[in-house]
Formats: sequence, structure tokens, C-alpha cells
Amino acid sequence: MAVRRLTETLSRHLLEDVYRCSQKKQTGVSLKYMMDFGTFPTKRNLLAAAQFLHKELPVRLAHRVVELENLPHGLSEKAPVFKVRDWYVDSFRDLRTFPEIVDNDDELRFTDLIQRVKMRHNDVMPTMALGIQELKHDLGKRVGLNELPEIHQFLDRFYMSRIGIRMLIGQHVAMHRSSPPPGFVGLICTRVSPVEVAQNAIDDARSACMRTYGSSPEVHIYGDPSFTFAYVPTHLHQMVFELVKNSLRAVQERFEDNDQEPPPIRVIVADGIEDVTIKISDEGGGIPRSGISKIWTYLYSTAKSPVLVDKQQFLEMPPVMAGYGYGLPISRLYAKYFGGDLQVMSMEGYGTDAYLHLNRLGNIQEPLP
Amino acid sequence: MAVRRLTETLSRHLLEDVYRCSQKKQTGVSLKYMMDFGTFPTKRNLLAAAQFLHKELPVRLAHRVVELENLPHGLSEKAPVFKVRDWYVDSFRDLRTFPEIVDNDDELRFTDLIQRVKMRHNDVMPTMALGIQELKHDLGKRVGLNELPEIHQFLDRFYMSRIGIRMLIGQHVAMHRSSPPPGFVGLICTRVSPVEVAQNAIDDARSACMRTYGSSPEVHIYGDPSFTFAYVPTHLHQMVFELVKNSLRAVQERFEDNDQEPPPIRVIVADGIEDVTIKISDEGGGIPRSGISKIWTYLYSTAKSPVLVDKQQFLEMPPVMAGYGYGLPISRLYAKYFGGDLQVMSMEGYGTDAYLHLNRLGNIQEPLP
Repeated sequence: MAVRRLTETLSRHLLEDVYRCSQKKQTGVSLKYMMDFGTFPTKRNLLAAAQFLHKELPVRLAHRVVELENLPHGLSEKAPVFKVRDWYVDSFRDLRTFPEIVDNDDELRFTDLIQRVKMRHNDVMPTMALGIQELKHDLGKRVGLNELPEIHQFLDRFYMSRIGIRMLIGQHVAMHRSSPPPGFVGLICTRVSPVEVAQNAIDDARSACMRTYGSSPEVHIYGDPSFTFAYVPTHLHQMVFELVKNSLRAVQERFEDNDQEPPPIRVIVADGIEDVTIKISDEGGGIPRSGISKIWTYLYSTAKSPVLVDKQQFLEMPPVMAGYGYGLPISRLYAKYFGGDLQVMSMEGYGTDAYLHLNRLGNIQEPLP
Repeated sequence: MAVRRLTETLSRHLLEDVYRCSQKKQTGVSLKYMMDFGTFPTKRNLLAAAQFLHKELPVRLAHRVVELENLPHGLSEKAPVFKVRDWYVDSFRDLRTFPEIVDNDDELRFTDLIQRVKMRHNDVMPTMALGIQELKHDLGKRVGLNELPEIHQFLDRFYMSRIGIRMLIGQHVAMHRSSPPPGFVGLICTRVSPVEVAQNAIDDARSACMRTYGSSPEVHIYGDPSFTFAYVPTHLHQMVFELVKNSLRAVQERFEDNDQEPPPIRVIVADGIEDVTIKISDEGGGIPRSGISKIWTYLYSTAKSPVLVDKQQFLEMPPVMAGYGYGLPISRLYAKYFGGDLQVMSMEGYGTDAYLHLNRLGNIQEPLP
């Protein structure tokens, strides 16, 4: 694949449009706003929402295009990064050439377009991971990725923006469902039971563990199953799945060659006034304090990294139990997106506790990098 | 008490000497160094140690005198702060007027002097707390102490320095014990059992809780009692006592008017390669995420603050279960002094976990603010 800079590939007109849009301020919305707005999905509301997205999405995409063009350490020149940038440019072009939305037919066609835009970007994460792998390969052992804070910060911004764009599109598309499940407003469920969602994530993570290792430690959950709050259950599932998976792997690998029964993982769900907090505690041996910053680094993984020759296979099947090392930083972004946080404490020689804080009030605006 | 600036109270000669010494670099030592050096307390070694302290202590004191003279927000003008500063000046003068140490008689007299210096500074903490109280009173409700980061940072430096000075003096004095307890090198025990020290701290904290409330929650401890490492048991006791006390208070106050048996506090001791970690977990209801920064602020206390009229009583009997709000930040300084750390995670609506990390290698040099 020949890789070329934007100035060589885009018409002058489109290039100027990208830069102009990248100067505009992005407009954030809150969970509460999405919920209030979406509670009555009248045609009028859907039209207004589409008009907002028609303005907002190109601005968000343009911010990313410009940043992808200007990355340090030669990351912008990596073929996978070009590929990702081109997806952003293509989506930008599609949105900017879509005519003004004036009626509900336009709205439906627009909804169809943004659904295709969302699908176009499905593989952004593994593709970007390949770019970072190539960068690591170039830099060799001389420098660790946590010694490149600007790359880490770029990826935080980039993936946070991606979560926001996909949430806005997903929410709009979901508003068109003819019979939404009870309690749902788009992707948001107004009465998520964190205990129930966590139990599903636990079941999925244990199945994955079974498939990989042939057995799985137990997971005990504590909390009130009847307690509910408003959240996006798919986000919650993904975060808990990731954390439980990490704990299962740690416990499984520590007790694999051990006659002892592996100690159960404990999941505690606390319903506070400000936050819902989910703590996942394991006795998987923990990590030393000096290594804790590494777990937040993109592409640090305790599991083996996918090798570059396996590009295609890697893209098709990211190995579930190992992952490509993005699980923790991405989960933290999901938590932060709606005003929460994810923190990890480790006791070397014993185990690890992860604290997933979810903001209950929901009126915190999206962080917009 | 009439309060006056240094320029009005000190001779020109002494004043110049303070400023000259405050320009000199402080010299840090590590736990390992103290241990290696003190393992053979020959007269020659004691002489060398006294000569080092005779040079080093005035430098450390001078740094503090100059800082106490130049605090922001009028804190330097508070009578209690003047009192503290004068203790530092008096000790500085005592050390600087002590003649050169050439033989073991000098060494013994010097040891006697620094022991008296240490006692002179016994009440620094409650006295300083009064100064801060007066500052808070002046500033009124307009501004919280965590909105005065420079005051917080000053107190961190000030108390960290105090821990170091007192450790150096205490260690030197303890080297003179005719029959040190087995395993001790000065104040350092080469085989501290963290489980045993934690159990003693738990017993003391439960007794204090009994005295205050008439009953006390249970505390369960998990860990290998036969595991030992080199540390200062008095520091360890103080930190664990403080953390268990906080947990007992939270649980006690949450379950006081409750028929339910209060849930036990769990203390886990993990022996890693890099760190020994002690986790104290309670189900005392926790605090919201937005309030977590407050627990590290000097003079924030969930208990009632001592009122200014009670100055004398406050100085004589700091109330054990309530404290004057210094427990957590001071415990963190003790942990950091030997390369460790203290972190607190809370789950609002459930409880709090404190992680006390103690560096096992001991070759980290004192932080010298």
C-alpha cells in the first residue's frame, strides 16, 4: 500500500474543509441529555437529532484527521495509521456531501449513512494497534511506550473521541428500533441492574477462560440485584468482562500447576448516592508497585504480543483471553466517558483490586479531546 | 506572647548562620545504610555518626527555619507558628554552639544534647495544628484548605523533614542502649513480623474504640505471622493503628444504632518481593469519590475539630479516636519516608480500603524536602 500525506491525496477544497472543521469547537452531550431527549422519539425530535449530528460528526472527525496527520515519532507515516486516517477522511467526506436534512426521508437516509460510517470504523482499534506495534518495532528495546507519554496521551484522546462518536451514532440508530426493549432509550437502559449485567459479564469471561484453559476459577458476586440505575449496559458489560477476564487469567495462571483449589474472585457492587462502584478482587498474585503504570500503557500486555507477520490473523481474531493489551486503558475511557473512573490497586504477592466507578447522576458532559 | 520576626530577635551573626546553613544541601541516608552502619556500634562508628549529625542536623533545621519565616497567607505571623520556629532556632543554636566532636566523651554529651532537642520538638504537631486552625478561622468559610495547595505542600515538606530528623536522632540515641532487644539495630528491627505488629496495633485501636464507644467491631487479620522484614516497628505500628482506628470509627458509627452485628474489618498482609503491602478493608459506608481528596488535607477530620478556646486541653490530650485530622497525611509521609506509599480507595455506600505499601529493599534514600 502506497502511503501518502493528505496534501497529496485530497482536493484542495476538501483539505480546506477538513482544516476549517477541525478549528470548530466540538459540542458535548451528557447521558442525562441523551436520555431526556430520547424519551420521546417523535419524528420531530429525530429530525433535530439528525441535524445536530450532521453538523457535529464532521467536526469531531476533522479533529481526528488533523491529529492523525501530525503524530510524533513518525507514527503518522505508518501504513496502518494512514488506513485509519483514510477511514476518517472518507467518513468526513460522506457526511459533508450529504445534503441538508429537511424532512424525515432525509433523516432516514442520513441514519443509514451514519450506520455505514460506524461499520467502516469497526477495525480501527486492531489497525491502530498494528501501527503502534510497528512504531515499537522501530524504536526497538531502547524506549518503552510509557516513556512516550505523548503517544499514550494521543491514544487516550483518540479512543475517547471514538467512544463518543460511536455512542452518538449508536444512540441515534437505536432510536429507530420499532419495539425497543422495555426501559431502553436508545442504547441507554434507564434501569440497569449492575449485579445482573456484571453476572452476565462474569459468565462470558468464565466461558472464555474455560475455552482457553479448560477450567475457570469461581467468581462470587455480592450486591443487591434489584438495585438499578441509568447506564449503557453494553459499556458496563464490556468493562466488567475485561476486568473479570484479567482476574481470571491471573488466578488461573497462578494456580494452574497447583493442587490447591484456586481462590474465588470477588465482585462487590456498591450503590452510593454519587457513584455505583464495582470492585473486582482477585488473589492472582498481583504486580509490584513499580509495574503499575505499565498496565495503563497501550500495548503492554502480560500475554504475548501478536507478531507482525500474523497481521491478517490478528485482525480477524483478536485472542480473547490475551487481548492486544488495550483492555484496561480502554475500559478506563469508557468509565470516564460518562463521568466515572477506573482505578487498579495491586498487592504484590497476593492479588489485585479494580475499582470501577460509574457516575449515577449522568449529567456530566462527554469529555471532548 | 509577643511575636517577632527573626530579624528582630536574633543576633546578626546567628541570623547569617541560619541563612548560610539553609543554602547547604541536606544529605539523605537510607534504611539499609542506617542498618549496615549500625550493625557494629563501635565507639569509632558512634563518633563518626555523631560527627555526621553535628553537620547535618543544623542544615536540616535551618531549611525549616527559613521556610517557617516565609509562609504564605500570613501563616508565618501566627503565634503558634512563631513558637515552633523558635524551637527550631533554639535547636539550631544549641547544635551550632556545640564544639567539635573529637572523642567519645564529646560524643556522649552530643547524644545527650540531641535527645533534649528531640524532646523540645515533641509538641510541634499539635502546636502547628493550632496555627493552621487560626489560619482557617481567618480565612473563614470562603476557602477550604484543599484550595490552598501551597499550605498543604508546605506541611508535607515540613512533617516529612520532621520524620527524618527524629529518625536520625532516635536511631543515634538508640545505638547507645546497653542491651538492645534481639534483632534490633537502633530503632530498626531486622526481623519485624508485619502480622505481629499489625495485631498489636489492632489491639490498641480496638481498646481506644472500646473506651470511646463502649464496644468495638471485630478485626480479622490474614497473613503469615512468621514472615519478617527490616523496618522500624514504631512507624509501622503508628500507621496501622491510624488506619484501623479510622475503619473502626466508620464501622462503629455506621452500625451503632443497628441491631445487625457490625461487619468485621479485614487486614491482609502480603509479602511481595519489592513491597510488603498491608490492606485494611472496612464496610463502614465509604465516602463519595468527590470527597476523597479531602481525606489527605491537613485538618480535615470527620470528627469535630478542637475549638480554639480549648488550646491547653488540646495540647495535653489530643483525642485518640478523633485526632486532629493529621492521621492519614502523616501516615502517608511515614510510608514514603522509607520508599513506600499509602493509598485509599473508597466505595461510597459500602466501605473503604487502605493500601499501605512498605518498600522491602530499604535502599531508597530519605526524601529531603
